Amino acid sequence: MTNRKLRMGMVGGGKGAFIGAVHRIAANIDGQIELVAGAFSSNPARSKETGEELYLSPERVYGSYEEMIRREKELPEGERIDFVSIVTPNHLHFGPAKLALENGFHVVLDKPMTFSLAEALELQQVVERTGLLLCLTHTYTGYPMVKEARQRVASGALGKIRKIYVEYPQGWLSAPLEASGNKQAGWRTDPARSGIAGSMGDIGTHAANLAEYVSGLKITRLCADINIVVPGRQLDDDGGVLLKFDNGASGVLMASQIATGEENCIKVRVYGEKGGLEWKQDDANTLLVKWPDKPAEIVRTGGPGLSALAVHNTRTPAGHPEGYLEAFANLYRNFALCVRAKSNGITPEPEWLDFPGVEEGVEGMLFIEKVIESGKSEQKWIDL
Amino acid sequence: MTNRKLRMGMVGGGKGAFIGAVHRIAANIDGQIELVAGAFSSNPARSKETGEELYLSPERVYGSYEEMIRREKELPEGERIDFVSIVTPNHLHFGPAKLALENGFHVVLDKPMTFSLAEALELQQVVERTGLLLCLTHTYTGYPMVKEARQRVASGALGKIRKIYVEYPQGWLSAPLEASGNKQAGWRTDPARSGIAGSMGDIGTHAANLAEYVSGLKITRLCADINIVVPGRQLDDDGGVLLKFDNGASGVLMASQIATGEENCIKVRVYGEKGGLEWKQDDANTLLVKWPDKPAEIVRTGGPGLSALAVHNTRTPAGHPEGYLEAFANLYRNFALCVRAKSNGITPEPEWLDFPGVEEGVEGMLFIEKVIESGKSEQKWIDL
Amino acid sequence: MTNRKLRMGMVGGGKGAFIGAVHRIAANIDGQIELVAGAFSSNPARSKETGEELYLSPERVYGSYEEMIRREKELPEGERIDFVSIVTPNHLHFGPAKLALENGFHVVLDKPMTFSLAEALELQQVVERTGLLLCLTHTYTGYPMVKEARQRVASGALGKIRKIYVEYPQGWLSAPLEASGNKQAGWRTDPARSGIAGSMGDIGTHAANLAEYVSGLKITRLCADINIVVPGRQLDDDGGVLLKFDNGASGVLMASQIATGEENCIKVRVYGEKGGLEWKQDDANTLLVKWPDKPAEIVRTGGPGLSALAVHNTRTPAGHPEGYLEAFANLYRNFALCVRAKSNGITPEPEWLDFPGVEEGVEGMLFIEKVIESGKSEQKWIDL
Amino acid sequence: MTNRKLRMGMVGGGKGAFIGAVHRIAANIDGQIELVAGAFSSNPARSKETGEELYLSPERVYGSYEEMIRREKELPEGERIDFVSIVTPNHLHFGPAKLALENGFHVVLDKPMTFSLAEALELQQVVERTGLLLCLTHTYTGYPMVKEARQRVASGALGKIRKIYVEYPQGWLSAPLEASGNKQAGWRTDPARSGIAGSMGDIGTHAANLAEYVSGLKITRLCADINIVVPGRQLDDDGGVLLKFDNGASGVLMASQIATGEENCIKVRVYGEKGGLEWKQDDANTLLVKWPDKPAEIVRTGGPGLSALAVHNTRTPAGHPEGYLEAFANLYRNFALCVRAKSNGITPEPEWLDFPGVEEGVEGMLFIEKVIESGKSEQKWIDL
Repeated sequence: MTNRKLRMGMVGGGKGAFIGAVHRIAANIDGQIELVAGAFSSNPARSKETGEELYLSPERVYGSYEEMIRREKELPEGERIDFVSIVTPNHLHFGPAKLALENGFHVVLDKPMTFSLAEALELQQVVERTGLLLCLTHTYTGYPMVKEARQRVASGALGKIRKIYVEYPQGWLSAPLEASGNKQAGWRTDPARSGIAGSMGDIGTHAANLAEYVSGLKITRLCADINIVVPGRQLDDDGGVLLKFDNGASGVLMASQIATGEENCIKVRVYGEKGGLEWKQDDANTLLVKWPDKPAEIVRTGGPGLSALAVHNTRTPAGHPEGYLEAFANLYRNFALCVRAKSNGITPEPEWLDFPGVEEGVEGMLFIEKVIESGKSEQKWIDL
Repeated sequence: MTNRKLRMGMVGGGKGAFIGAVHRIAANIDGQIELVAGAFSSNPARSKETGEELYLSPERVYGSYEEMIRREKELPEGERIDFVSIVTPNHLHFGPAKLALENGFHVVLDKPMTFSLAEALELQQVVERTGLLLCLTHTYTGYPMVKEARQRVASGALGKIRKIYVEYPQGWLSAPLEASGNKQAGWRTDPARSGIAGSMGDIGTHAANLAEYVSGLKITRLCADINIVVPGRQLDDDGGVLLKFDNGASGVLMASQIATGEENCIKVRVYGEKGGLEWKQDDANTLLVKWPDKPAEIVRTGGPGLSALAVHNTRTPAGHPEGYLEAFANLYRNFALCVRAKSNGITPEPEWLDFPGVEEGVEGMLFIEKVIESGKSEQKWIDL
Repeated sequence: MTNRKLRMGMVGGGKGAFIGAVHRIAANIDGQIELVAGAFSSNPARSKETGEELYLSPERVYGSYEEMIRREKELPEGERIDFVSIVTPNHLHFGPAKLALENGFHVVLDKPMTFSLAEALELQQVVERTGLLLCLTHTYTGYPMVKEARQRVASGALGKIRKIYVEYPQGWLSAPLEASGNKQAGWRTDPARSGIAGSMGDIGTHAANLAEYVSGLKITRLCADINIVVPGRQLDDDGGVLLKFDNGASGVLMASQIATGEENCIKVRVYGEKGGLEWKQDDANTLLVKWPDKPAEIVRTGGPGLSALAVHNTRTPAGHPEGYLEAFANLYRNFALCVRAKSNGITPEPEWLDFPGVEEGVEGMLFIEKVIESGKSEQKWIDL
Repeated sequence: MTNRKLRMGMVGGGKGAFIGAVHRIAANIDGQIELVAGAFSSNPARSKETGEELYLSPERVYGSYEEMIRREKELPEGERIDFVSIVTPNHLHFGPAKLALENGFHVVLDKPMTFSLAEALELQQVVERTGLLLCLTHTYTGYPMVKEARQRVASGALGKIRKIYVEYPQGWLSAPLEASGNKQAGWRTDPARSGIAGSMGDIGTHAANLAEYVSGLKITRLCADINIVVPGRQLDDDGGVLLKFDNGASGVLMASQIATGEENCIKVRVYGEKGGLEWKQDDANTLLVKWPDKPAEIVRTGGPGLSALAVHNTRTPAGHPEGYLEAFANLYRNFALCVRAKSNGITPEPEWLDFPGVEEGVEGMLFIEKVIESGKSEQKWIDL
């Protein structure tokens, strides 16, 4: 691969979408990736308009993802896109991801990975068969202090992990926004586009993924209280889940979209035999490390005493806050480093490999399936 | 009743006890109560020594609570104690409380109210029969901002309540302190002194009480994950509980004594249709009130816009922090106001009546019984 | 001295006063002191009424401080008061303090010590001559974490101190409250009762005292911008001051009573060659200790790693917040311990001696004199 | 101008530089600008190496800024750069800025604007003469909540402004880093490269600019205590400044680079007759608005009730923290919008014009000159 930026083609992310713009910023930040193609909308005129606003060549703005993948594949190597970024609602993840992979393109995919567990398992096979890279954008694992938390646990500094609390309270769906035409609320509350889960798919999977990422453990059993709080809604908008992990630790997961007045303060706390730690998005550049026998420490992005993993994912000195977009960009950057390494036959550094992929995607879909099953069950514990 | 301070006799609280000293400070603060008698220890020498340190008349320092109650009753009215404060471990609550009530003394009692639910129900009958006052020291409901939270919910400002999170993470029992002679840890982890529950009795009841007090709701069902984490322990030191309330709201309760590095940051969050609120002990003079459509508000002890209930329970202007001891003192002060009103045949003000009593005590014991039952059950939901 | 509580007589603190009630609570908390006499108001009826509310014997409620001191002195030793607590406005500090000392009573005195520097210097001589104890209630030095801060600096842990920031922003005088009959605002803005300074005397002295207490340094020069912001006011309600300390360090002091919306968040930051620290009243149980080469530490009241001085001034385990009244009570308790030690011919422990006295009082009055002089001067630096 | 990204050429920002990378990220984020040329270092080999890492065409990586400007000017319009971004130390600001402007290129310039006030005044004339755009990267004014603060003051919601506190405490120069080869410390402490000021130029100007931006006021007088704390240093590393503003308000500015353990928590507080506000970089997405008669409000990036100016400068919904790089990017984006509008003969929206320019640059250099003069003077107040 010559010395150039990676070329990205986007599926979804037309005008009015939220997460498409976030993906583009995340891809832009580090100057490693350029957006050169897109099928931004199922409406060709809107796709064209979006392409124009993004300064794309008109001939690389497509009317459908199938067209994009077919036509890009026909371009000479070194000119065509290197990977596809898929930012559509859940029911439109699997199709473009499979097609892209089968045509030789790496994939970045928003979470949850697919519409159903069955799709997820099939996609896993496609990834394994093609040997291509898939990055699943569980954003919160991109924060430097989340990575530091993971390293601290992995180092054994906290001792054996015993308890995990993870929560993701949002309030934006406390009113029936979907009834008044809000696009984001619309598809998230629609079983035909979101899948079997509402809030558990949208943010519960983030919480479960964060707990597993930081702790290095896997959820093995759960017991869920899943609620539809806003009348008329078809999918859950709230839930509390008791968890068991594969080392015997227990946990509690709380995800709600009817926590009126809350923004997006996802938070995780992990307690081991020797110490505990706490991270929350509202103070994203701080990792609190707590001890029974000495003062708690305020570990900070860019500050002293950090692991190589945290340093690799940091852009500024301590006290210049990095935020959500930088966390997102860390996923893109690490993915890009691995794509480039693969193209050039180079062994990637361990830090580069640290982004969520198809395995996390399958785990997320399994979580969704089981948490919804548990919510409907009179049985206390459900195994994963 | 003549114009004098109320007279208190204490059961328990000898040297080395923690909560006895707290009760004495709480009783002292407002100058409404004086400690005049005590049976501070089952060891008469230690009781005597404690009495001396507290400047009591030697003749009113007793070797047992039975002796204290008997001898004080023999003193002329106006000289003898008005009430008994009981600060012993759980297994020694019922006996002195019952005896005191049956001999005409009001009672202040540390929580949980008794050793068992059966004792609680019997004590409830004694209270009803004697018509005397019992104050149960669920301290956290004494904070002005907790009271303000309750008033805000009761006023309907948040709309119908839908979700409640309450948590009480502690770390002090993350190591087996009881094995090395720690007195506090010793009785709390001993089924013979603590009852069927460890952490659920010690702090879980506080959390449940706080959730009910603030929300004005009652827990009707629960599903509990109850754990003994530290090897060799006989009682739970950790638990997570899914809750259902009598208006249909759901909740999550987390109480742990193995959350290594945590202090005592009990915290409650309540979300209604229109708004949410958050209070935590670490920032006890702040009540956050959150809205979907306008900025969150920082309601403060002593600040503008407070209810009569909050104002009544506040001693200093905003920004002079009131803490745990003042919250505790609010229970004593309101109890004292009611005792005095009763003695003088005066109707108490509504604010005076706001302290936990025998009803909350029975609820707490029922919570303990059911949460432990649920922890052992394969059935998902247990009704209260 | 026999085994009994110390006996206190109060000057001032009648109905409607703020600080009198605070002093009484502070004296009550630890059960070491009992209020037995008072001249609560220059209005004998109001004094009597206050005495009644406080359950005092009517014969020990006096119409003036002169009467109280004279009559108490006539009582037998062991029955009469041990000390006088003076909680009147500034112009009424010197008289009762001097008279009390000269009649053999120890004194607790609210700050600033006197109406003028001349009075302060004379009072200092009286204290020295009588050999009695005087406690000046610079409350903020009573907080356990302020004491810990002082110890950390004194230990050399931060290296040579280079920079000190201290601030006390209040907003309560941003409107002319004194014009609408507010008693607190009335005397504080009145030169006849407050002295030459308004905010600088009321809160600037607290800030200066806190900076000196924590750093162990003395202010040697200052350059002040002193303002009367609210039209019609005669005394300063705002000021900023550049400081020089006796070791060459520099500092900035900010005190304002027109910082609209602020409560009482007095805050101090001290930076040395090796580290820095920060304390503020709004989070009074936390001391942040900051390092260039390792994470900042959250030192907590009741937590691990504290000095004997902090431990001595703490009543509860970590996480049960202690507040303003406990800080105030620490002054009273240490004073009481020293009075008792003196009476009994015992050498006081070093921790007991740690309360502000006449020396701090003189320094405060010197600060007031010089800061007001500087405010009016075109000369940049004024020596103290 | 055709539908394309703006083209940027960079001066400085070679390997090892800090702020160059920040500028590149800021330019990248929104996909409005592409870096196409650079003179990254006075060392041509290093410049070449940097260009390669940034995927630039080798023929557009130059050995000097003079060469870049000359050669780019020779390229056809529509291919050559649109503007120059200058990220060199202070002594190398004026030369490239003047040359760029005089050759028809707009300019983005790091602060302080020039080496001396004389240069600043000359550059101001060049800008006025050429009619081109100059953006000065006073980053902190790019934060959405800083912009909201400015709007709130401008709206009159706080009433007449009376008091301003602004502070910028850093600790990174508490040791003589410049002696051990630290590149950033090296030029900042070197009068030949930094100018007459050290910390006052580096961060004092940020603080002064922030105070003026938020308050809408201008500093008219100052009284400064300027210190060289670390032995052997030639320029100030610490200072405290008393301020007077053009409406009669007073203020205090604190800027230090020897506040050991501090990161970059620049903070501003503004108090008016009716209310106050507070913003600090450590919690950059929060603006506290404080009132005397109702609870303080937590105004949040992306939250309800914001001005058009704040909304325009926000990329994500509330609770997805935006940080330093997004604030920086806001300057670039607004500058780019204005450059594009100018090229296309369109009237820019008011929000686009909101970036610091040559006027703020001159003010900053005047502040530096006067604050250093004051630091050396025995005269109390110096007029600006």
